[in-house]
Amino acid sequence: MQDARAFYPNDSINVAQIPGLNTLDISLVRIDYAPYGGLNPPHTHPRATEILVVLEGTLYVGFVTSNTDNRLITKVLNPGDVFAFPVGLIHFQFNIGNTKAVAFAGFSSQNPGVITIANAVFGSNPPINPDVLTKAFQLDKNIVTYLQSKFWWDNN
Amino acid sequence: MQDARAFYPNDSINVAQIPGLNTLDISLVRIDYAPYGGLNPPHTHPRATEILVVLEGTLYVGFVTSNTDNRLITKVLNPGDVFAFPVGLIHFQFNIGNTKAVAFAGFSSQNPGVITIANAVFGSNPPINPDVLTKAFQLDKNIVTYLQSKFWWDNN
Amino acid sequence: MQDARAFYPNDSINVAQIPGLNTLDISLVRIDYAPYGGLNPPHTHPRATEILVVLEGTLYVGFVTSNTDNRLITKVLNPGDVFAFPVGLIHFQFNIGNTKAVAFAGFSSQNPGVITIANAVFGSNPPINPDVLTKAFQLDKNIVTYLQSKFWWDNN
Amino acid sequence: MQDARAFYPNDSINVAQIPGLNTLDISLVRIDYAPYGGLNPPHTHPRATEILVVLEGTLYVGFVTSNTDNRLITKVLNPGDVFAFPVGLIHFQFNIGNTKAVAFAGFSSQNPGVITIANAVFGSNPPINPDVLTKAFQLDKNIVTYLQSKFWWDNN
Amino acid sequence: MQDARAFYPNDSINVAQIPGLNTLDISLVRIDYAPYGGLNPPHTHPRATEILVVLEGTLYVGFVTSNTDNRLITKVLNPGDVFAFPVGLIHFQFNIGNTKAVAFAGFSSQNPGVITIANAVFGSNPPINPDVLTKAFQLDKNIVTYLQSKFWWDNN
Amino acid sequence: MQDARAFYPNDSINVAQIPGLNTLDISLVRIDYAPYGGLNPPHTHPRATEILVVLEGTLYVGFVTSNTDNRLITKVLNPGDVFAFPVGLIHFQFNIGNTKAVAFAGFSSQNPGVITIANAVFGSNPPINPDVLTKAFQLDKNIVTYLQSKFWWDNN
Repeated sequence: MQDARAFYPNDSINVAQIPGLNTLDISLVRIDYAPYGGLNPPHTHPRATEILVVLEGTLYVGFVTSNTDNRLITKVLNPGDVFAFPVGLIHFQFNIGNTKAVAFAGFSSQNPGVITIANAVFGSNPPINPDVLTKAFQLDKNIVTYLQSKFWWDNN
Repeated sequence: MQDARAFYPNDSINVAQIPGLNTLDISLVRIDYAPYGGLNPPHTHPRATEILVVLEGTLYVGFVTSNTDNRLITKVLNPGDVFAFPVGLIHFQFNIGNTKAVAFAGFSSQNPGVITIANAVFGSNPPINPDVLTKAFQLDKNIVTYLQSKFWWDNN
Repeated sequence: MQDARAFYPNDSINVAQIPGLNTLDISLVRIDYAPYGGLNPPHTHPRATEILVVLEGTLYVGFVTSNTDNRLITKVLNPGDVFAFPVGLIHFQFNIGNTKAVAFAGFSSQNPGVITIANAVFGSNPPINPDVLTKAFQLDKNIVTYLQSKFWWDNN
Repeated sequence: MQDARAFYPNDSINVAQIPGLNTLDISLVRIDYAPYGGLNPPHTHPRATEILVVLEGTLYVGFVTSNTDNRLITKVLNPGDVFAFPVGLIHFQFNIGNTKAVAFAGFSSQNPGVITIANAVFGSNPPINPDVLTKAFQLDKNIVTYLQSKFWWDNN
Repeated sequence: MQDARAFYPNDSINVAQIPGLNTLDISLVRIDYAPYGGLNPPHTHPRATEILVVLEGTLYVGFVTSNTDNRLITKVLNPGDVFAFPVGLIHFQFNIGNTKAVAFAGFSSQNPGVITIANAVFGSNPPINPDVLTKAFQLDKNIVTYLQSKFWWDNN
Repeated sequence: MQDARAFYPNDSINVAQIPGLNTLDISLVRIDYAPYGGLNPPHTHPRATEILVVLEGTLYVGFVTSNTDNRLITKVLNPGDVFAFPVGLIHFQFNIGNTKAVAFAGFSSQNPGVITIANAVFGSNPPINPDVLTKAFQLDKNIVTYLQSKFWWDNN
C-alpha cells in the first residue's frame, strides 16, 4: 500500500496515484492559476462533490444549478475561504487578482473524474454531429465546425 | 403512499411525482422526439446512470467520456434497442428518422436531475462572466454575449 | 465496454448482457404478456426496486406489504401508466385484457435477481422438506408432495 | 438516545425498539423454536442479510437461490453453529430436535422487514385475485380459495 | 460458497472465515469473559457498528462519545439484554460477576476490524515516537518507554 | 443553502458550519502546529478517511493498523506532500521542524467526528472504571486515577 506522495503544481492525487486510497472515497487536487485571468474552465466531476480552499490569491468561483432554474451561485474567495461544489454541477474558478492563485480541492471519491465542458462538447474524438451542436447551442453551423477544428487541450 | 400515475409525452416520473419512490433509488422518463431532427440536446444527469430503450423511430445517440480522452461513443438505435449512459457523462439523442420517435429511460436515482449543457452555460441566471466563457469556449466575446442574450428554454 | 444491444420480447438487460453496466446500479427488462390471463406470477427481486411502464394492453398489478400487515396494493394500468414495486416485496402483473400486453421495467440494480415464489418454494432443487411446507402453507401433505412433483418452469 | 434494552423470547431489536440504532445499519432478533417441529416458516427479509447462531437445540435450516436455478442449500446446525442467509432469499429454520431451540440472528439493516411467504401470498388483505394464485401455484381454485379463507397469523 | 461453520469460544465469523459473506455487510462474534474481571478492553471497530446480546453472566459495558464531550455511556447487562456501540467509538465490556460471561455481537460489516487502544498505542510495531505519547497521554517519558517495552498480546 | 465561509487557523468546515454540505459526503479542516513539537495527538475519525496535504513546515505523521498486527506506518512530510489515513485508524501528526506548520485535511464525510484517544480514555465524563483502564493499559492504578484527575482539554 502506497499512502504518501509529493504534490506538484496542478497535481492530482487519486486512486491511480496512491493505490492505498482504494475503497477510501476521497482524493485531493492542487490547482494553480496564472495571474490576470487564470481559469479552471466550466467543468463537472461526474462522481464527486468538491470542497475547495484558497491558499493564495483571489478567485471568483461559481456553479450553476440543474434545470430548469440554472441559477448561478458565485463568490469571491480570498486565502482561507472555502466553497463547496455539489456532485455533477457545472462550475469554474477564475483568478481575478494580479498574482497567481493556489487552491486545494478535496473530492468525495477516490476517482472523481473531470469533464471540461467546452472540450468534451467541441473537442470530442470523433466530433459530435455538427447538426446536434448547431441546434443545441443556437450557433451558426460554420462556428460549430470552426470550433470543432480547434485544438482543445492547449488553451487552458 | 402514491405508487402509480399515468405517463404523458415527455413526462418524468420521479420522487416529486410519486412520493412512494422515496428511498427507492429509481425513476423513469418518457421522451418524445419530433421527426427530422428532434433533439434531446447534450446534457448530464448529476446523480444517475440512465438506461434507454427505443419504442418507436430511429435515434442516433451518444456520450462523451471524461478528460482527457473525451472519446465519443455513438450508436444508431431502432425500436427495441437499449443503451446505457454512465452517471454524469454528457450525452444526447437525435431523431434521424422521418417519423417521430419515442423512448423510455430508467435512472438509478429517485431524483436524477438534468443539466442541459448549453442552457446552463449560456442561459444561467444571472449570466456567467463572459470572460470565463470567451476563454473556455474559444469564442469571440461578441458571440458569447449574443448567446447569453437569447432565450434558452424555448428552442428544444 | 459494451453499452448497447437489441431488446427482444421477454428480454432482460443486466450486467450479464451488457458488461458496461458494471457498477452502474441500473438494468431494464421488457415483459410480454399473452392475451386473456398472461401472468408474471408472484415474485420478488432480492436486490432492486422496480418501476414499470405499460406500453400496450391492460395489466392488473399489485404488491403485498411486509408482515404483519400484508396489505395488498393493486392498480389497473393502461398504456402510459407507471407503477413502482419496492425492493424485495412480493408482486405480480396479470393481463386482464383480450390483447397481448407489453411493459418495460427499470431496476435499481445492475443485477436485481428474480425469485418466482411458487417455483422457489415448490420447485427447488432438491425439494424443501415437505413437513416444512405442509406446516407453513397449511396444506395437506399429499398436496405438497404432488406440487413438488410437478414441472415448474414450463407453465408461465 | 436509547441504546439498551432487555431481550425476550421471540423478541426483535430494531430501530423501532432502540431509536439509537438509527443510521447504524444493524439489528438483532432472538428466535425460540418449540420442540419437535417448531418452525420459522419460509420467509424473506427485503432489506437485509441475516447471520444466525444457534444457542440451544438442533435446527435444520436452508435457503433457495434465485431463478432459474432455485437451488436449495441446507445445513443441520447445533449450538455454536452459524449460518448466513443472503438478502431477499427465501429461507426457513426447523427444529428437528426433541427440545426447544434458541437462536440469535443479526441483520445488516436497522429495519430489515419480514415477509412470511405463505401469509403474504394466501393471507394478504384484501386477498390476491384467486386466478393469479391458481395459475402461479398450479393449484385447484377450490384449494386457493380455501387457503385464502384461513387464519394465517395463528398457526406459527 | 461456504455459508456455515461452527462457533467456538472467543470466535469470530467474518468474510475471512465464510467467503459466502462477501458483499453481505454483516458478521458475528462470540465473546467469552473470565469470572471476576474478564475484560474486553477499550477498543474500536473502524468499519462497523456493533450490537451485543448477553447470553450468560453480568457485564458492565460502555462507550465514550466523540470530542469534545467524551461522554461515557454505561449499562449493566444481564442475560437477554442488548446494547449498541456506534461505529468507531471506543467501548469495552467488563465481567463484574463471579461466573464466566458469554455474549454474541453482530457487526454491520463483513470485515469490521478491531483496534485495541492500549495495544495499538503502546504496542505498535515499530513503536510510536515516545515524545508523541508522553505529550498526548501526559505521562512521564519513563512510563511511556516502560509501557512500550511490555508484551501486549498476552494480557487480555 | 450556505456554500462558502472563511477558514481560520485550526478551523473545521463540516455540515454544522456549512449546511450546504448536507448529503455531500465531504468536509475540510485546517490544522496549525506550533514549532518544536506541536502535536495533533493520536486520534481517530469514526466516520471518515482523511487525506492530508502539508502547506508549511515539516510533519512526522503516522497511523497504526488494526489488530493484531498494529503496524505503525510513518512518513516525514514537507510542503506539498500528501498522506492518507484510512477510516477509523489511530493516527497523529507531529511538528518536527523549528517553524510552525500548516496542513489541510479533507474527509470523506460531511461529519467525520474526532476522538482524541488519551482524552476519551482518561478524560471521559464520567470517568471509566479505573479497574478497566488499569488492566487494559497495564498501568498502576495510582497512575490511572492520577491521569483521570487531570484536565485533558488544555494541553494540546
